[in-house]
Amino acid sequence: MTVYQATASAPVNIACIKYWGKRDTKLILPTNSSLSVTLDQDHLRSTTTSRADPSFKHDRLWLNGKEEEIKEGGRLSTCIAELRRLRREVEKEEGTPKISEYPVHIASYNNFPTAAGLASSASGFAALVASLAALYELPATPSELSLIARQGSGSACRSLFGGFVAWEMGSKDDGSDSFAVEVAPRSHWPNLHALICVVSDDKKGTSSTSGMQRTVETSTLLQHRIKVVVPERMRAISEAIKARDFPTFARLTMADSNSFHAVALDTEPPIFYMNDVSRAIIALIVEYNRASVAAGGSIKAAYTFDAGPNAVIYAPEENIKEIVQIIISYFPQAQPFNDVFGLFGGEQPKGAVPSGFNEAVSKKFEPGAVKGFIHTRVGDGPRVLGAEEALLNAEGLPKAQT
Amino acid sequence: MTVYQATASAPVNIACIKYWGKRDTKLILPTNSSLSVTLDQDHLRSTTTSRADPSFKHDRLWLNGKEEEIKEGGRLSTCIAELRRLRREVEKEEGTPKISEYPVHIASYNNFPTAAGLASSASGFAALVASLAALYELPATPSELSLIARQGSGSACRSLFGGFVAWEMGSKDDGSDSFAVEVAPRSHWPNLHALICVVSDDKKGTSSTSGMQRTVETSTLLQHRIKVVVPERMRAISEAIKARDFPTFARLTMADSNSFHAVALDTEPPIFYMNDVSRAIIALIVEYNRASVAAGGSIKAAYTFDAGPNAVIYAPEENIKEIVQIIISYFPQAQPFNDVFGLFGGEQPKGAVPSGFNEAVSKKFEPGAVKGFIHTRVGDGPRVLGAEEALLNAEGLPKAQT
Repeated sequence: MTVYQATASAPVNIACIKYWGKRDTKLILPTNSSLSVTLDQDHLRSTTTSRADPSFKHDRLWLNGKEEEIKEGGRLSTCIAELRRLRREVEKEEGTPKISEYPVHIASYNNFPTAAGLASSASGFAALVASLAALYELPATPSELSLIARQGSGSACRSLFGGFVAWEMGSKDDGSDSFAVEVAPRSHWPNLHALICVVSDDKKGTSSTSGMQRTVETSTLLQHRIKVVVPERMRAISEAIKARDFPTFARLTMADSNSFHAVALDTEPPIFYMNDVSRAIIALIVEYNRASVAAGGSIKAAYTFDAGPNAVIYAPEENIKEIVQIIISYFPQAQPFNDVFGLFGGEQPKGAVPSGFNEAVSKKFEPGAVKGFIHTRVGDGPRVLGAEEALLNAEGLPKAQT
Repeated sequence: MTVYQATASAPVNIACIKYWGKRDTKLILPTNSSLSVTLDQDHLRSTTTSRADPSFKHDRLWLNGKEEEIKEGGRLSTCIAELRRLRREVEKEEGTPKISEYPVHIASYNNFPTAAGLASSASGFAALVASLAALYELPATPSELSLIARQGSGSACRSLFGGFVAWEMGSKDDGSDSFAVEVAPRSHWPNLHALICVVSDDKKGTSSTSGMQRTVETSTLLQHRIKVVVPERMRAISEAIKARDFPTFARLTMADSNSFHAVALDTEPPIFYMNDVSRAIIALIVEYNRASVAAGGSIKAAYTFDAGPNAVIYAPEENIKEIVQIIISYFPQAQPFNDVFGLFGGEQPKGAVPSGFNEAVSKKFEPGAVKGFIHTRVGDGPRVLGAEEALLNAEGLPKAQT
């Protein structure tokens, strides 16, 4: 008996030009285009196994081992239905097994803890779409699949590509031109690294789904951001990426993070995602760049913040060691640094600041304010994995994860 | 021998529609109109004594007992020169003593500590202008004097009036139409009270003078605020004040505070004036209003933040007791509450939240995060004081202040 099953993994992406606002909440059509860097799946990924089997009673899904309801008309249901529809196109070919008629079991697993505060919906929906596309042997391009992932979670569409990815907002009411495209592959600029600073937060933030709609409804500045600011930044950052112009890339990334948090603040009631720790990290990166420029150098790092207090710092690989040392100077670590790139030759990093750095730009915090780091880099798009990596057991139920 | 001396006091004002950005930094011409509430001088004031005397060697000024240099071409020098110019007009009248030819000694004193984090430049320059205008017996109206105070410190022009005051930005290059006007006197809405929450800050903020110019130079959202958002808000809040419509006044005040901090954040590098304590106070006021509206009531309080972490809460007098109790629930006090309006009948206030208030909106802070409160209300404009309140002694030097 043939087992119809496929496993795929998909990456996390972190936007440089931020998505904030939907013009259609059902189809998830954004109010502006956005652009992100795909992070390396060797470090951060969602993995999903999908199996179609006539013995299954109905579609079921497990996330990190826990079953989630697939609500009719909900986002999961929409994605599965869209991929089944594409499968039925394939099945028009004589002799193709009609597995679109079988219920599916889907198991998904994120290799990063929820406590890391990283949104898993982008990588999760991208892995779901990639695994079902592999199961159904769909001839779809990543951009075509991104149309479906977008309906699961907007930013998921950008996780269908590696490297540098634009989500073109499109203009059609049916959303058929609102998909992701590759701006440049990871191989174009492989030494762009990312350092995620996991920031402790003691308040429950506003969800991005409800937050962005409140901004659309109440902000008096958002329309100007959408119509004037973002289109120009999309053009400029795409050029900067093509030219591997880090200082311009960094300036635009920081400016757009600020702009996104500015329109969140200009919401009624205001939305704050950054806290005093986030602000201190900004002050450190600003000072790091200032000192470099003052010494005749150029901008060496860029911060960006999504809908939470964690900082993501983009920098050329050669600057990451210095950045870790600066941040550790102000944020003593309770946990050891996971030095996947061997920056510190087997030792634990110690705090240090470069010459010319004004140490008074921030106070020093208590251990735990920055809970830890994840050091990664630009990565590739979804991967189809071998059967040995499947998350479903012989009975089509989730394997225990270790 | 005649002593030519006058003493005046002037109030603090706190803007509801914020001034942020100059189109002319020398003349201090703003990029947008603004509107403020004048606070009661019974609680917060600057007092200034000016004396003109032929025996003085040159113009001198003492602030809180410490001599300050009057720099040529600087703001103090400009204000003094402008008032002398108006005095010379008066002296064209036969028999008027030519005291404009005498050097002046000026002593100024703020009755609130610098540590309170309240900007003293507005009340200080208003008191300076009011005392020299009294000394010189100028026939100028408050709006005319506000043209001069504006050149000392932009927002000082609004402290030349009591009640509700608009600073009309004007359009002329020479600034002659950029002055303050009264929107409504204090007597129009006397039960509008203000509660200042003095917030501890461990970082040196960006000065508003340099901060606002960085925003003008780098923010991509500021022009939209200036051209579209503020003109509409000025119109709407003036109407709300005339109608004593507190909910509308409150909504506009909170929205414009958020908008100002949003454009500060949208600056390169970004400017943050609010901290985690400020954010928590916002969350408390938002919840206080939400609970009131949910129970069929209306908006009961408005927060606003200037270029620092202190909150100013505007509310009808009858709500202040509840607001103090809410804030004290989350911010235990190390200092006793100075109950100038007798809200608590001689007792110290205890923390409490109204029914329906969701206590989970903020964590509770350690004592000292909110260092204290100043409870005041809408107040009157500059007052000319009697000789017994003079700050200069017989020799024309500052008296010791107690």
